[in-house]
Amino acid sequence: MSNKPLILITNDDGIQAKGIRSLIEAATAFGDVVIVAPDKPQSGMGHAITVNNVLRLDKSPLFPDLEAYTCSGTPVDCVKLAISEVIKGKPDLLLSGINHGENSASNVLYSGTMSAAVEGAMEDIPSIGFSLLDFDPNADFTGAKWAVKEILSNMANKEFPKSICLNVNIPSISTSEIKGIKICRQARAYWKDNFDKRYDQFGKPYYWLTGDFNRSDRSEDTDIWALDNGYVSIVPTQFDMTAYHAISQINEWGL
Amino acid sequence: MSNKPLILITNDDGIQAKGIRSLIEAATAFGDVVIVAPDKPQSGMGHAITVNNVLRLDKSPLFPDLEAYTCSGTPVDCVKLAISEVIKGKPDLLLSGINHGENSASNVLYSGTMSAAVEGAMEDIPSIGFSLLDFDPNADFTGAKWAVKEILSNMANKEFPKSICLNVNIPSISTSEIKGIKICRQARAYWKDNFDKRYDQFGKPYYWLTGDFNRSDRSEDTDIWALDNGYVSIVPTQFDMTAYHAISQINEWGL
Repeated sequence: MSNKPLILITNDDGIQAKGIRSLIEAATAFGDVVIVAPDKPQSGMGHAITVNNVLRLDKSPLFPDLEAYTCSGTPVDCVKLAISEVIKGKPDLLLSGINHGENSASNVLYSGTMSAAVEGAMEDIPSIGFSLLDFDPNADFTGAKWAVKEILSNMANKEFPKSICLNVNIPSISTSEIKGIKICRQARAYWKDNFDKRYDQFGKPYYWLTGDFNRSDRSEDTDIWALDNGYVSIVPTQFDMTAYHAISQINEWGL
Repeated sequence: MSNKPLILITNDDGIQAKGIRSLIEAATAFGDVVIVAPDKPQSGMGHAITVNNVLRLDKSPLFPDLEAYTCSGTPVDCVKLAISEVIKGKPDLLLSGINHGENSASNVLYSGTMSAAVEGAMEDIPSIGFSLLDFDPNADFTGAKWAVKEILSNMANKEFPKSICLNVNIPSISTSEIKGIKICRQARAYWKDNFDKRYDQFGKPYYWLTGDFNRSDRSEDTDIWALDNGYVSIVPTQFDMTAYHAISQINEWGL
């Protein structure tokens, strides 16, 4: 048995993505890596779990020197299967990503990458989701790998807060241009949705979801501000969605 | 044009479920109803959206007297399509459910029913998700329909807090046994996951997700306590997942 920390790695772009390979390359120096990742892209799956279908778990040939599996389900399924069937216990650290694309602000809710990290937080495993602000399948992950190493080496002797995870976003600029790392709050920024309506060969309509991300909340304590100004953003993220401030107002309804 | 409020109704069990029919029956007295619901069960889909596939939107024959559509996607897709393509604007109220099964505590993250309501909150639409603590497809929704009417009639002249939704759970008891309605916080309760490992006709393993819900956080201000004690629970729910309490601790890491 190794004395190194056991690091579970997953993502939502699928095991074949450049982002997870980059995360594995950056993380292997910090512990023994086990990979359980989706067998296909699972972007936008949020905190979905597979309840009406079965799951497959297969050894992956992609990382022959590591313990690597694909799962037929969502990123959260990957975390649950890894704990129950692969590791048969909790890893010391859970890393998710590196996502091809931004997961700042309210994207945290749609993101399979971040939902895997949130699932880790629910299991009280120190968990971090990493996302690069570049959707390109061949994006340059050099700066993102620097951020992974910087954060992992820095937190090695620190106490990780209980029941939270970190949402790390990395601007798509060269490492030398990155100004530093900022701890932030989730910006109040939204998608203005649009559907691209098209017609199939039978003349019936179908829809592609598109949209514009409204980066309107730019105050200096937000992840949006940090990213727009050349910083890596870290939002500590929790899963109590109670709107505490609204409890007294609704109590006044006299229900 | 009607002067009544426009109510968008969706769910995650699919348009054929008894729960959405019960919700429609309870809600029609309060406004003009438009239905956009999944064409098949979408339980456990969380805040998933369909980004790698197209969506279909079809008129449903199930509610011939109402404007009713099925969507091939997730509950959140239903909300987005309803706003962009059906209503072409925001409804006055969004109702989701009535779910067949509990969505208390951290279930809010896995729940398609509640994620549709959270999506409504992100659009600043007064939104409510309803769930009955009974998974039976033929469950008795009498008490749940009472709760829907009680809440809708009570909030008619009240201000709905901005950017939140309500997570309403209803115990599976007769209406006369319901002790009242409590405004609560989300309990810290978790799933202890188990996978049922089986083998297919080729001898290859597959997995069904199962688990036990650990109702350990039972303090009197939680939804779990309310439900265990015969109350309808309402948790005001928001979508800022920032762990504000952890920001200063992580700032001390000196990143």
